[in-house]
Amino acid sequence: MLIVQKFGGTSVGDLDRIQNVADRIAKTADEGHQVVAVVSAMSGETNKLLGYAQHFSRQPVRSEVDMLLSSGERVTASLLSIALNEMGYKANSMSGRRAGIVTDAAHTKARIESINPKSIQESLSQGNIVVIAGFQGVNEKGQVTTLGRGGSDLSAVAVAGALKADLCEIYTDVDGIYTTDPRVEPKAKKLEKISYDEMLELASLGAKVLQNRSVELAKKLNVNLVTRSSFSDAEGTLITKEENIMEEPLVSGIALDRNQARISLIGVMDRPGIASDIFSRLAENNVNIDMIIQTSGHDGTTNMDFTVPMDELEDAKSVVESFIDNDEIKEAGYDEHICKVSIVGVGMKSHTGVAAKAFESMANENINILMISTSEIKVSMIVDEKYAELAVRSLHNAYELDR
Amino acid sequence: MLIVQKFGGTSVGDLDRIQNVADRIAKTADEGHQVVAVVSAMSGETNKLLGYAQHFSRQPVRSEVDMLLSSGERVTASLLSIALNEMGYKANSMSGRRAGIVTDAAHTKARIESINPKSIQESLSQGNIVVIAGFQGVNEKGQVTTLGRGGSDLSAVAVAGALKADLCEIYTDVDGIYTTDPRVEPKAKKLEKISYDEMLELASLGAKVLQNRSVELAKKLNVNLVTRSSFSDAEGTLITKEENIMEEPLVSGIALDRNQARISLIGVMDRPGIASDIFSRLAENNVNIDMIIQTSGHDGTTNMDFTVPMDELEDAKSVVESFIDNDEIKEAGYDEHICKVSIVGVGMKSHTGVAAKAFESMANENINILMISTSEIKVSMIVDEKYAELAVRSLHNAYELDR
Repeated sequence: MLIVQKFGGTSVGDLDRIQNVADRIAKTADEGHQVVAVVSAMSGETNKLLGYAQHFSRQPVRSEVDMLLSSGERVTASLLSIALNEMGYKANSMSGRRAGIVTDAAHTKARIESINPKSIQESLSQGNIVVIAGFQGVNEKGQVTTLGRGGSDLSAVAVAGALKADLCEIYTDVDGIYTTDPRVEPKAKKLEKISYDEMLELASLGAKVLQNRSVELAKKLNVNLVTRSSFSDAEGTLITKEENIMEEPLVSGIALDRNQARISLIGVMDRPGIASDIFSRLAENNVNIDMIIQTSGHDGTTNMDFTVPMDELEDAKSVVESFIDNDEIKEAGYDEHICKVSIVGVGMKSHTGVAAKAFESMANENINILMISTSEIKVSMIVDEKYAELAVRSLHNAYELDR
Repeated sequence: MLIVQKFGGTSVGDLDRIQNVADRIAKTADEGHQVVAVVSAMSGETNKLLGYAQHFSRQPVRSEVDMLLSSGERVTASLLSIALNEMGYKANSMSGRRAGIVTDAAHTKARIESINPKSIQESLSQGNIVVIAGFQGVNEKGQVTTLGRGGSDLSAVAVAGALKADLCEIYTDVDGIYTTDPRVEPKAKKLEKISYDEMLELASLGAKVLQNRSVELAKKLNVNLVTRSSFSDAEGTLITKEENIMEEPLVSGIALDRNQARISLIGVMDRPGIASDIFSRLAENNVNIDMIIQTSGHDGTTNMDFTVPMDELEDAKSVVESFIDNDEIKEAGYDEHICKVSIVGVGMKSHTGVAAKAFESMANENINILMISTSEIKVSMIVDEKYAELAVRSLHNAYELDR
């Protein structure tokens, strides 16, 4: 098999950990696989370099920040290659540029546009383990770019796609995707497999193992992703396309997102386009709306409830207040003490009664559901924050995820 | 003018010093000059990275060492560019690769083969200050290479040559070339100008400001080199071609080299090719011979004296002993307590009596001259180490270098 293995900053956090990573790659090579490793900067290194830059400028030129930061992954890549060579394996390191990763020109948050895997393939065919500096590429002008948060994961997925690798393993400090947060429900089970779409829902709902950008890219390029731990030999979780998952369970996992606030608009003036006005203004102010519910009032006005990420609440407030000042909204309420509990599973599509079971489960625990939103593979409920753990555990139990 | 300014590791040793360097470049730009800066890694950085590599391997793969070390200069270059941009100057940094520096494939000690200054010229023509990561290039395969000791000086000289720059300023922690070591002779004077050939002799004789490789390249490319201090505004010393120096002084400087040992071979068997045998064997064992004197003995044998660098004495000894074991040399003496004092000056070529004045000066101080060697622009004498300072001061005085 051809396996792409990606090791994040914690996995290569110091020299001994880099040696551990070398041992793991060597083991994979010994099993007869071809290996392409993608590495992040040693943890702390990127922040150190950013601190240097901020010594000179509060807003350092982005293209230069990229030049600066890209050195961190180069250091890890060459050290890992040195370790592998010392162990008797042929290995060579490559910058993002040499690996053929071409991005757009958006410095510090570039998007991968194409990969020319010629150099990687050539090196593999010479029997090398290829070690690639993640997080970076070059734009058309040949300037170094970086990919922003989660960039090394993206590098790995994109390289795996271009090479048509059999597997892309993302090594982190957790050993896979769980049916829910084990700190909330100790009976949570590690999932063996999960579909891209389920993973996307879980990730956006607060499970922080993988960034959505990477999962989306894996889905697009049809890359079999595995998340697993670099600190244990435990099998990870395979994220793959739905067809590859036989016998879908009804529900794959329960996600909890505490990072939401609810805004209630009462007495919204009933004129055409008012909702559109409000939500456009929020978007212009970079407020991300999640759930929206609209109900009619009795006096020709409507009420609207919606949720926003906690750290965008202040921005949202000032937009809302301006509508109140214009008498287009009567009054508004803000509630930070809520949370969102979600049930995710592709199996829902073909089964009825999944949502009903969730509501029943909440009712049994006397938990009041404040808002509901559903999609093909997800049911989300907003409940009072104090019920967060209870809600998760009762849902986990209702869908028998601990079996 | 188009000026290339090179700043070594000490000059960019910490963030405040990088700011100083930015201020100096800005000043040069304010005077209306175009500036290309070439920078080393922050002092200590290269050794830190080498230490990392040696954690994994006593002899880390050279190509990977190059990948590793090249990150150091990239960090300095981008930080300097960030500082300049913050000050309102347009600046952009370039790796050795982007600067168009192509080398051979000899990793960790590559030689520059060509420079394609297109990117630099393009950036200059857009009004940028260009900041280049020194010490590095790429080979034909596109792999990063480094240039070995003094590599950033070489980068600067080569770039200056390719750009036909008016001046290449090498900033270090000393403010120029002196008539002799000021720690030995406080009356030593800083030279305003010196020819490439004199500089080469002085450098090889122990004056450590510039590596010979850089001076040779400057001579070849006809680059006007200036060495000056990054910690003062003092004018430096211009190193240029002889024709540019009007009114050559007879002697430009006195060099002292304490790092020599003398080997005396007594009773060398008088067979054809014996000298060639001895010196070939020494060369095979990487012993660099400096001065050689041969005298005939009375019994059909000859005596030979030669000097070697102190740290190659042990290797030389074992070669010599093997000839003694074969009865081709009767006996050998080794003297570590000698030093070499040299008078350097292109003016010598057209003047007689320069050497005579040196010998007279030694005689006046009762210093016994053990060996003598002369070239067109140099007279070297081996004397007992205890006379080192006295010899330098009396020669400095004899040639009136303090005037």
